[in-house]
Amino acid sequence: MSTYFSQGDEVTLFERAHRRQLPMMITGPTGCGKTRLVEHMGERLGRPVVTISCHDDLTSGDLVGRFVVAGGDVIWNDGPLTRAVKDGALCYLDEVVEARHDSLAVLHSLTDHRRTLYLDRAGQVLHAPREFMLICSYNPAYRSSLKDLKPSFRQRFVTLAMDYLPPDREAEVLVAESGIDRPAAERLVRCATGIRTADQIFHLEPPSTRALVAAAQLIAAGADELHATQACVLAPLSTDGAITDGLREIAAAALSTDRTSTT
Amino acid sequence: MSTYFSQGDEVTLFERAHRRQLPMMITGPTGCGKTRLVEHMGERLGRPVVTISCHDDLTSGDLVGRFVVAGGDVIWNDGPLTRAVKDGALCYLDEVVEARHDSLAVLHSLTDHRRTLYLDRAGQVLHAPREFMLICSYNPAYRSSLKDLKPSFRQRFVTLAMDYLPPDREAEVLVAESGIDRPAAERLVRCATGIRTADQIFHLEPPSTRALVAAAQLIAAGADELHATQACVLAPLSTDGAITDGLREIAAAALSTDRTSTT
Amino acid sequence: MSTYFSQGDEVTLFERAHRRQLPMMITGPTGCGKTRLVEHMGERLGRPVVTISCHDDLTSGDLVGRFVVAGGDVIWNDGPLTRAVKDGALCYLDEVVEARHDSLAVLHSLTDHRRTLYLDRAGQVLHAPREFMLICSYNPAYRSSLKDLKPSFRQRFVTLAMDYLPPDREAEVLVAESGIDRPAAERLVRCATGIRTADQIFHLEPPSTRALVAAAQLIAAGADELHATQACVLAPLSTDGAITDGLREIAAAALSTDRTSTT
Amino acid sequence: MSTYFSQGDEVTLFERAHRRQLPMMITGPTGCGKTRLVEHMGERLGRPVVTISCHDDLTSGDLVGRFVVAGGDVIWNDGPLTRAVKDGALCYLDEVVEARHDSLAVLHSLTDHRRTLYLDRAGQVLHAPREFMLICSYNPAYRSSLKDLKPSFRQRFVTLAMDYLPPDREAEVLVAESGIDRPAAERLVRCATGIRTADQIFHLEPPSTRALVAAAQLIAAGADELHATQACVLAPLSTDGAITDGLREIAAAALSTDRTSTT
Amino acid sequence: MSTYFSQGDEVTLFERAHRRQLPMMITGPTGCGKTRLVEHMGERLGRPVVTISCHDDLTSGDLVGRFVVAGGDVIWNDGPLTRAVKDGALCYLDEVVEARHDSLAVLHSLTDHRRTLYLDRAGQVLHAPREFMLICSYNPAYRSSLKDLKPSFRQRFVTLAMDYLPPDREAEVLVAESGIDRPAAERLVRCATGIRTADQIFHLEPPSTRALVAAAQLIAAGADELHATQACVLAPLSTDGAITDGLREIAAAALSTDRTSTT
Amino acid sequence: MSTYFSQGDEVTLFERAHRRQLPMMITGPTGCGKTRLVEHMGERLGRPVVTISCHDDLTSGDLVGRFVVAGGDVIWNDGPLTRAVKDGALCYLDEVVEARHDSLAVLHSLTDHRRTLYLDRAGQVLHAPREFMLICSYNPAYRSSLKDLKPSFRQRFVTLAMDYLPPDREAEVLVAESGIDRPAAERLVRCATGIRTADQIFHLEPPSTRALVAAAQLIAAGADELHATQACVLAPLSTDGAITDGLREIAAAALSTDRTSTT
Repeated sequence: MSTYFSQGDEVTLFERAHRRQLPMMITGPTGCGKTRLVEHMGERLGRPVVTISCHDDLTSGDLVGRFVVAGGDVIWNDGPLTRAVKDGALCYLDEVVEARHDSLAVLHSLTDHRRTLYLDRAGQVLHAPREFMLICSYNPAYRSSLKDLKPSFRQRFVTLAMDYLPPDREAEVLVAESGIDRPAAERLVRCATGIRTADQIFHLEPPSTRALVAAAQLIAAGADELHATQACVLAPLSTDGAITDGLREIAAAALSTDRTSTT
Repeated sequence: MSTYFSQGDEVTLFERAHRRQLPMMITGPTGCGKTRLVEHMGERLGRPVVTISCHDDLTSGDLVGRFVVAGGDVIWNDGPLTRAVKDGALCYLDEVVEARHDSLAVLHSLTDHRRTLYLDRAGQVLHAPREFMLICSYNPAYRSSLKDLKPSFRQRFVTLAMDYLPPDREAEVLVAESGIDRPAAERLVRCATGIRTADQIFHLEPPSTRALVAAAQLIAAGADELHATQACVLAPLSTDGAITDGLREIAAAALSTDRTSTT
Repeated sequence: MSTYFSQGDEVTLFERAHRRQLPMMITGPTGCGKTRLVEHMGERLGRPVVTISCHDDLTSGDLVGRFVVAGGDVIWNDGPLTRAVKDGALCYLDEVVEARHDSLAVLHSLTDHRRTLYLDRAGQVLHAPREFMLICSYNPAYRSSLKDLKPSFRQRFVTLAMDYLPPDREAEVLVAESGIDRPAAERLVRCATGIRTADQIFHLEPPSTRALVAAAQLIAAGADELHATQACVLAPLSTDGAITDGLREIAAAALSTDRTSTT
Repeated sequence: MSTYFSQGDEVTLFERAHRRQLPMMITGPTGCGKTRLVEHMGERLGRPVVTISCHDDLTSGDLVGRFVVAGGDVIWNDGPLTRAVKDGALCYLDEVVEARHDSLAVLHSLTDHRRTLYLDRAGQVLHAPREFMLICSYNPAYRSSLKDLKPSFRQRFVTLAMDYLPPDREAEVLVAESGIDRPAAERLVRCATGIRTADQIFHLEPPSTRALVAAAQLIAAGADELHATQACVLAPLSTDGAITDGLREIAAAALSTDRTSTT
Repeated sequence: MSTYFSQGDEVTLFERAHRRQLPMMITGPTGCGKTRLVEHMGERLGRPVVTISCHDDLTSGDLVGRFVVAGGDVIWNDGPLTRAVKDGALCYLDEVVEARHDSLAVLHSLTDHRRTLYLDRAGQVLHAPREFMLICSYNPAYRSSLKDLKPSFRQRFVTLAMDYLPPDREAEVLVAESGIDRPAAERLVRCATGIRTADQIFHLEPPSTRALVAAAQLIAAGADELHATQACVLAPLSTDGAITDGLREIAAAALSTDRTSTT
Repeated sequence: MSTYFSQGDEVTLFERAHRRQLPMMITGPTGCGKTRLVEHMGERLGRPVVTISCHDDLTSGDLVGRFVVAGGDVIWNDGPLTRAVKDGALCYLDEVVEARHDSLAVLHSLTDHRRTLYLDRAGQVLHAPREFMLICSYNPAYRSSLKDLKPSFRQRFVTLAMDYLPPDREAEVLVAESGIDRPAAERLVRCATGIRTADQIFHLEPPSTRALVAAAQLIAAGADELHATQACVLAPLSTDGAITDGLREIAAAALSTDRTSTT
């Protein structure tokens, strides 16, 4: 089983929802570990994970399947959701808020007491086994009137709110994934924390743990800390000159102060 | 026959409409039991229920059927509406307000004195048997100029307005479905009632009976009452910090007051 | 021949238009009897009626036909309009204002001196027989800049403006269709007339004869008059609390006054 | 050759354009005789007329043709424009302003010195014979920023502006087409002239000669003059009560004054 | 080789761009001779010309080709752009501003140092031979925020700005193409020049040389000069009465003054 | 290996990202050398480059592949992204900001620790080999609310910000690519620098190195410097007369001053 750095009681909540056959909605900022939690729970519960990246163009046919022509005949081809139901898998709809709401209607009967998938076009009705669980995720920071999930849809799920790891654990992750030393990891985390705090001023998407890992990997490959931070953490945040300068000051301060203090 | 907790005379009204071959429109908030009523009436009247979840992308072809290629030949494939007409089933269009209005035009001749389904593409005309009944549902709280049902469409149906169960019966449902004890069920219902009352202030979708059942199930699985309420009842309502705090206060008060008073 | 309750000279006007091979446009509020007139004229003139419910998604291919693959070959499949022309039928386009205007272009050559249907894709030209007649209907109360019929389209038709039946005849219809007694029918009609008069204040779609018939049928099945009126006549009109209360007062007054005066 | 009532020198202009191989654009109000002129010129020049009713959904494939599957093989199927080019026909695009502008791009090379049709998908290039002529029509009264023809497109054509016939000739048409007597025809024309004059006030589409012919035919079938005028001339103009009343006064005056003066 | 009336050094610039393998963008008002220049250069350079009329519906598949079914098998069918690359032709995209910008992305690799066409769907990469040249044209007078070409796209081309011929040469063209005498040609050109000058006031698309040629041809066919000018030059410009009157005055003055002065 | 003129440490950063299996986002103005860098790195790392020009119409099927019919059977056809993953290629998505965001969702699992491509429709899961690298590019100057990349997407990449070459190196490129002499190259660069500086005033897309190379090639083919600059550098920038005049002054000054000073 791969190492998983837990934030709190999310593993327990997930297990309880799975035991009571309740679907789960995981919320949290980009790159805070939502996908990793699902992968970890799949290993822990001994169930396969079927991942579906949601997008505007995902049709209900893409989810449940469709008829295809093969060898001159027409046969039904299960979609990933149907396969997950049949296999009793954990079915993970990543960034569900990106999906067209009409594609989500097919999930309704799977998320209430029916736990049933209606394959209207195939003329079949599937009852989900106990092991099957539906998990969705989204980032509540992206709220727009057009794409916000319907309240009645959100009420169908047990909601698990995730956030960034606490600084200590985040530094631990950087060391484990890139091989840089602990002080350098702490400098990067301090830099991220500084920007996340300044976030209220800049109205930016805060830097993710994933971006910190990338910076750590460039450093491990020989890059200068400030350059690596610039390329992986600062540059993706904004292309506005003034903001970029402000961010660089925060980063430079965090990286050098820290270095002084740890040497 | 599964247990059904009735709200009033909805079963009688449904039976009369069925006897006089009138279509029915069920309105009411999310998760108040519309789907369960239809399932219950199917059992009671001894008719199969064909459920169709409506969405923007549902074409009239999805409802009535289409030609498909099979074994090199083209054959007509009945859609769920056509199958329901042929089987004398209860055909249930869930959240009909989500459907494109043009897809609904095919229902017109089924909802007046003709009780006829025109399959233009197949060149067939089907007369619905006495047993067939069309039921639609929608939540009138979701009114938008774009998606509101046309008045002339609504006038084609006998309208049944449902609401949440009274507190006593709602607690009864929680006990029956999750196995928690009666006082805990009452605490959860009191919590929901508090939020539903505060609804005028917060402008939120009020919590559904379905969400309460989910919280009850997490409690039955060992979760703390406040945490379960947070995950299943409060978190889906809003991601706005201030509102979330207000909701948590209401919930904490309802859960603790109640506990004190019942011990 | 089924009973038809005429409003005035609409049968004569229809016959004259048919004799002179002129197409007809029937206007009037929802459920005032447009469809029934066409069915009646079909019986009277001894011609089949082909009904097409118009909607946004109706293509000209749906009207005139298309090529389909059958047994490995491609054959032309007549649409309902083409079949109606070939059979000399009455072709009835219900709620024509709902159709996309581009789908209606195919009707132009059928509605002027040419009386010709060009099947461009099939490479055929059909001349309509004397018996063929095109009838369209729409409800002028639904006027929106987007969907209003083009004036040049409306000028292609003899226009027949229908309205609700006078109260006496409307009560006659209720008795004939539901079996309730005459005084109860009169109470329902008085109730409808009251709301139709109040219509200028509430800006609602007025209740249709069809909705009154449904209420009469529930009453015949044992329902209370006020409840039946609520479910079939009032509830479909509005979900706004204040308006609903106003409507219920009008209904209660009409139903009770009447009962007193007839006993 | 069918009778054609000419307005002025339109026949000469048409013949000159045909002789010099220039395309023609005919403008004028609805029902003023544009289609009849093209039919008449087809007879006069001894060329077939291919009519295409333009609409929003007309693709360039509908105009030039497409590949279709037949007997397991794929064969090219000429569209009406391609057939017209090959046959040296008069190709008439009725209401060209309704077509999507992108569908019209295929006409460019046919309307300049090239007189060539590029069938990109079929890989063919067709040179139009001398006899071929492209004619388009539209009603300039329907000007909207969205659908107005591009100036560069209009400049590709010789423009022929048509209008209603002068009263004498219009009455002549009514007599010829319906068989009513001359005084009645004159009353109808006076009525139309009155409304066309009042047009500046009412901002309506003025009544067409086609609508007058329909009224004349109802009169010939026994209808009262005012009723026939109401059904065929007034009712299509407006559904606004005040305007309708104003129109009826104009009509009643025109019909009665005239009757007095001619008796 | 057909006669070509050059405006200046456009032939030289075109030849230099061709020699250095640079793509060219020709700009200029409608009907000023852009298409004729490309045809002329094709003859001069001894290369075939492949013309593609751009429009909103042109897909990249229409440009590069697509798979089609033939004889039960699927074969790749080159589009006109692919054929032009293979043949080393001049590929002319007429009115490129009309094309959807996404269809133009396929041109990027052909318009920089790569001179390469990627046929992603066919899995092929084509290197353009030296002889191949891509030419686009558009009329900068049609600027709209929606359809303007992206600056980065325009920078990929050598830009050749064309305009109307000087009066003398334009009259020469009229004589050569229609056979009218020189004074009449000069009168027509003076008329056009007058309107082009008044263009700032009327905000019209100025009359093209093509429209003058059409007028000249009608005159050669016996039409009166003012009538021919009205039908081919004035009528396409506007349907607004006041503007039309203003234009006719300019035209009448230009035609008569001139006639006096030349007799 | 073709000559590459580096701007700074971009080659080193690229190599480090490749070694640590991190995806890269290259930003910079049009024609500053983004595409050339990717080609250069392909040669340097000994990996093939698969280029995909992004546009609005690019579907995820175009990226990953789709089922196609061949010889009566249905076979899976890899798209360029899938081929790049299988071949361990550098996969370059040019102007990724042009792509529909929903098409980009398929990239998520390739750009985090999973480095996995889910082919949902084919039912396959591909793990990218070490050699595979995903590179995207875009021009941050084109920012629009509709098309801006999501921050969470940008955070998945190491960002490399490119800009125009310094004047000396840009002149070097012009000499190398066109064969003009050094002083002429310097005059062109000075001209470009002048316009790029004036850019804040004119709000134009600044001229690219690519446009300067084109001008240099026309000069090498015998064109006058000012004419070549006009056709390749100034004309694509604007069609507004006043701006064009301003630009021409800057260009004339830069070209002549320079000439004087270098002679």
